[in-house]
Amino acid sequence: MTAKKVRTIEELGEFGLIDHLTSGFINRQESTKMGVGDDAAVIDHGAYYQVITTDLLLEGIHFDLVYTPLRHLGYKAVVVNLSDVYAMNAAPRQITVSLGISGKFSVEALEEFYEGVKLACERFKVDLVGGDTSGSMTGLVISVTAIGTALKEEVTFRSGALNNQLICVTGDLGAAFMGLKILEREKQLHAKDPEFQPELSGYDYILRRFLKPEPRVDVLLELKEAGIKPGAMIDISDGLSSELLHICKASECGCQVYDERIPVLDETAEAAREFGMEPMVAALHGGEDYELLFTVPLSAHDKITAIQSVSIIGNITDKKGSALLVGNDGSAIPLQAQGWDHVS
Amino acid sequence: MTAKKVRTIEELGEFGLIDHLTSGFINRQESTKMGVGDDAAVIDHGAYYQVITTDLLLEGIHFDLVYTPLRHLGYKAVVVNLSDVYAMNAAPRQITVSLGISGKFSVEALEEFYEGVKLACERFKVDLVGGDTSGSMTGLVISVTAIGTALKEEVTFRSGALNNQLICVTGDLGAAFMGLKILEREKQLHAKDPEFQPELSGYDYILRRFLKPEPRVDVLLELKEAGIKPGAMIDISDGLSSELLHICKASECGCQVYDERIPVLDETAEAAREFGMEPMVAALHGGEDYELLFTVPLSAHDKITAIQSVSIIGNITDKKGSALLVGNDGSAIPLQAQGWDHVS
Repeated sequence: MTAKKVRTIEELGEFGLIDHLTSGFINRQESTKMGVGDDAAVIDHGAYYQVITTDLLLEGIHFDLVYTPLRHLGYKAVVVNLSDVYAMNAAPRQITVSLGISGKFSVEALEEFYEGVKLACERFKVDLVGGDTSGSMTGLVISVTAIGTALKEEVTFRSGALNNQLICVTGDLGAAFMGLKILEREKQLHAKDPEFQPELSGYDYILRRFLKPEPRVDVLLELKEAGIKPGAMIDISDGLSSELLHICKASECGCQVYDERIPVLDETAEAAREFGMEPMVAALHGGEDYELLFTVPLSAHDKITAIQSVSIIGNITDKKGSALLVGNDGSAIPLQAQGWDHVS
Repeated sequence: MTAKKVRTIEELGEFGLIDHLTSGFINRQESTKMGVGDDAAVIDHGAYYQVITTDLLLEGIHFDLVYTPLRHLGYKAVVVNLSDVYAMNAAPRQITVSLGISGKFSVEALEEFYEGVKLACERFKVDLVGGDTSGSMTGLVISVTAIGTALKEEVTFRSGALNNQLICVTGDLGAAFMGLKILEREKQLHAKDPEFQPELSGYDYILRRFLKPEPRVDVLLELKEAGIKPGAMIDISDGLSSELLHICKASECGCQVYDERIPVLDETAEAAREFGMEPMVAALHGGEDYELLFTVPLSAHDKITAIQSVSIIGNITDKKGSALLVGNDGSAIPLQAQGWDHVS
């Protein structure tokens, strides 16, 4: 690779880093329909596409075993990958699960983790077909790969957004992030005073959203029944803002979303206020919601409004490079990507 | 899962642990031909099979950055997965590469790693189609998934060994392990005395075998040209002994291999003697050779002996549970699986 000016991982950011490192790679296989750059890779099998996605979950970065039940962790590790498969409008079929395990784990602890994996497999009808298990010198390492299939005409790419399409999200946003904030707060209070009893009652919804996210397969079924195929689609793992920018980049378009249209529940807003935070910050940048963000043609407006768990939050524009958050007063602020604060 | 007597990871061992944790899983997808239990999972695509395999490589367990050039590490991380694809008699097509990176890495260091990945992609004509990049609180984490395809009648399973078939290995064994031992020795001497200059000359072959293994696609081509389809096949990643036991278990058979037939080069034997080790121990238990172990019908004897880089080391027997190493004096010792010493 040739010398470039940008030289720190922080400057590049996660997505810039991946782009930079993979820029010199050329696809040679006819079956490779889509490589790096969507929720999942897409492999052409003639009559249908296969989508493949993989996620790495590392202790201390993506999860904290102090407050994460292993059963939930096993379930979540699978579900976050299935969410990427669903975001391609595909049906998940198989997964592999690899684990790096430090000496502190007992067989019982691993059984708990696999119970969560099993629950996800049963619920979403996917088969566990492989993996790798190894010791780890440090923390728990989880790597999951999920494989799905879809008819060719059904697959949705990030690049499918068109001018004037409506921008929709499922469910509500920011709750998972506020759940994480509560868990972190109680953990720190407990660390300062071992007799302190964590107070988690009243936060059930936001805690569940963080600890046990559910992929929105239900909405995909409703869209199918309504005869709507999304233009572009992505799942919200890094925060609404970042995902909107992904769609705009891949679709070479702009967007405007309306502050007051972004669905944030009272539970989330109240928790945000406890931390002196704007609820909208959690919704835009919190991440881990695993809701779906997608675009539909204007003609689908009435059918979409009939689906209870979908909100129309704005529309695609032809102003490439302009992704705007429009406030109640008509002011427009450019959306920004979340910084990559995992590497320090 | 029900309570069982065995409760420590050490007692179960790596393969026992995987069996134990995945025993309650049921495959539901019609396309799942083979799940956990071979070099790769096998997915049925009608006209052909697709094989999928994944490996986790963790700093401090699988590699030591003190003596492992990142370019070699990138190459090896890909190649060990391709080796599993080849061991199914399939052709690799796509890979995903996920990295967990601690703060000590520069963009240049990651570029070096990806140069190794790229070299492997170019050499074996596979496409890098995805992955995940994240920070890591601790060491470098590498997770690679490889995907290949093969005509249905060409795929070889571990379970394909039949009574009286000849047992063959490619290349030579034990060299990679002795390369590792040399590197570890020089590292320790250097740690004791920082002015000490590691002495690695004269060990070129065994060092290369450890740092830059090559999958034996050449032998697969020769077998194909000779019209030989292996019965069972597996790649030697954990040591000959352990792989023979995998074949015997999956094929429900026994085996006998002859001490003097096991290919060990002089370079390997000399290095073993420097450590006061029996060369045969490195060959049986060293691992990381990434040679192929396979069985062929007796009728293929003459054709096999004509292939220079293949050795016939013994034969399959119908004595289930009896895997024997036969010495020059006719004595027979049961083969034992390598202990799982990574978890402590």
